[in-house]
Amino acid sequence: MLNNAISIVGLGSMGYGMATSLVRAGHVVHGFDIAPAAMDRFVADGGTAASLVDAATASDILVIVVLNAAQTEAVLFGPDGWAKNLRKGAAIIACATVAPEFARTCAARCAEMGLHYLDAPISGGAAKAALGKLSIMASGTQATFDAAAPALDAMAETVFRLGDEAGSGSAMKAVNQLLAGVHIAAMAEALTFGMTQGVAPAKFVEVISQCAGTSWMLENRAPHIVDGDYTPRSSVDIWPKDLGIVLDIAKSAKFGAPLTAAALQQFLAASGSGHGGEDDAAVAKVYARNAGLKLPGEV
Amino acid sequence: MLNNAISIVGLGSMGYGMATSLVRAGHVVHGFDIAPAAMDRFVADGGTAASLVDAATASDILVIVVLNAAQTEAVLFGPDGWAKNLRKGAAIIACATVAPEFARTCAARCAEMGLHYLDAPISGGAAKAALGKLSIMASGTQATFDAAAPALDAMAETVFRLGDEAGSGSAMKAVNQLLAGVHIAAMAEALTFGMTQGVAPAKFVEVISQCAGTSWMLENRAPHIVDGDYTPRSSVDIWPKDLGIVLDIAKSAKFGAPLTAAALQQFLAASGSGHGGEDDAAVAKVYARNAGLKLPGEV
Repeated sequence: MLNNAISIVGLGSMGYGMATSLVRAGHVVHGFDIAPAAMDRFVADGGTAASLVDAATASDILVIVVLNAAQTEAVLFGPDGWAKNLRKGAAIIACATVAPEFARTCAARCAEMGLHYLDAPISGGAAKAALGKLSIMASGTQATFDAAAPALDAMAETVFRLGDEAGSGSAMKAVNQLLAGVHIAAMAEALTFGMTQGVAPAKFVEVISQCAGTSWMLENRAPHIVDGDYTPRSSVDIWPKDLGIVLDIAKSAKFGAPLTAAALQQFLAASGSGHGGEDDAAVAKVYARNAGLKLPGEV
Repeated sequence: MLNNAISIVGLGSMGYGMATSLVRAGHVVHGFDIAPAAMDRFVADGGTAASLVDAATASDILVIVVLNAAQTEAVLFGPDGWAKNLRKGAAIIACATVAPEFARTCAARCAEMGLHYLDAPISGGAAKAALGKLSIMASGTQATFDAAAPALDAMAETVFRLGDEAGSGSAMKAVNQLLAGVHIAAMAEALTFGMTQGVAPAKFVEVISQCAGTSWMLENRAPHIVDGDYTPRSSVDIWPKDLGIVLDIAKSAKFGAPLTAAALQQFLAASGSGHGGEDDAAVAKVYARNAGLKLPGEV
């Protein structure tokens, strides 16, 4: 009934922007989310709502933008899973942050079924997702890249081609998340340390962003603290998940990662003390509380 | 005998570039270093060699580019110290990384003697020092800034004016060093973690420098690892010193800094295992050794 379309599962902060970017590029796009409200909103924005099974039978490209490996596995190989309902030659673009080994296993299972699996973690945040300007750290066979190209073109500004085997994309994503998480926690540590020495947060941002101590994350997140605005662009609870994945991979490789481990503790403390749903800059609240400081906007 | 000149003590990797930048700007510059070879070289490059006492009596602006607070104190208040030999109204530009409280104490002692003390830590590295394009994080009275201006103009591209009291400059420098040190260690942690997952160091630099995980230090230092080049632009041994200062200040403020502490351990391990005089990117050797990895250029 449906045909030659692109399907996407997971209409959250990243997936929704990717789905509307696909619509804007002229594709027929079927969206699925466990939240009916997300599907209603997507229909209003030019997409169609589809069951998981209908999405699979209707499309040659399927984009998975879910939270983790377990959800990715359920979408692909669960009771209503996509893999068994897809046409041979269809491309699966798997965007969740997962362990490289998981990506390799999925790719092998898909290959046995005649399907192309692109290991394709995403980076850039919800704003770039909505603009179709994500960075995608992708690995897979040439045939997989070819089959996935129409969707990649619509969703990404930059596609890093990291090799012809699944796993390499997820490896680079894990590396990026290690740094991004450590840099957010380091920014929070430095900003609050500065406050103990009389450095106002706004002055911190103004000066350090021009100095050797700057990072992409500092420039992006520190202004949230200055503004006292913890509306979640990316939430604290992403980090126990993603740094947990990094440390699981590291443990398997017998690799000690002390800074990553220290950063994880700070995000866990932020989540455990009730800030898990806030913007990840709220990790600064852990430091501030421990040092008896009031951040901007706090009474 | 000498008059209206600028004197500078400490002709090391930073101080030498600052001294020649002052010469290039047309100033008569007296240099002092405990290493006679550094003074000989400076004379060949257009400066003059002076004893500490002669430098003090000859100049209205004195620049101190030594290693730490103890050396700064010796230069100012030791047996041949500058303070007692300077004319009233002379400006002292103190560039070492020190605790804010130390800077406040020095400024107060100088003020009692009719001298201007500029708390003026520097950032930017030896290359920018040689070009007269440092960043200087400065605080002090308006009269101090006015008196120091001819030297600041010649040495700095950017002078951050951080308030009218000594200590604020050193506070911001400590914040910057916290971040810079953590970011170098995080870069090393991520680069070597990536290697365990098949991410080549060159690919790490290519991709991550375009992603949210990037930092100024990553872009500056990671190429040293890719090239296997540990010629010290800034050495490992800077970091036990500077992160130690940060943690001393933090301890006084009862501020817990877990990422800084973790980074310090890695730099101590790098220094303790014989890499203290190498470029600070050599902290990656600690991670590589612990994980059984060979970095580029290692046999």
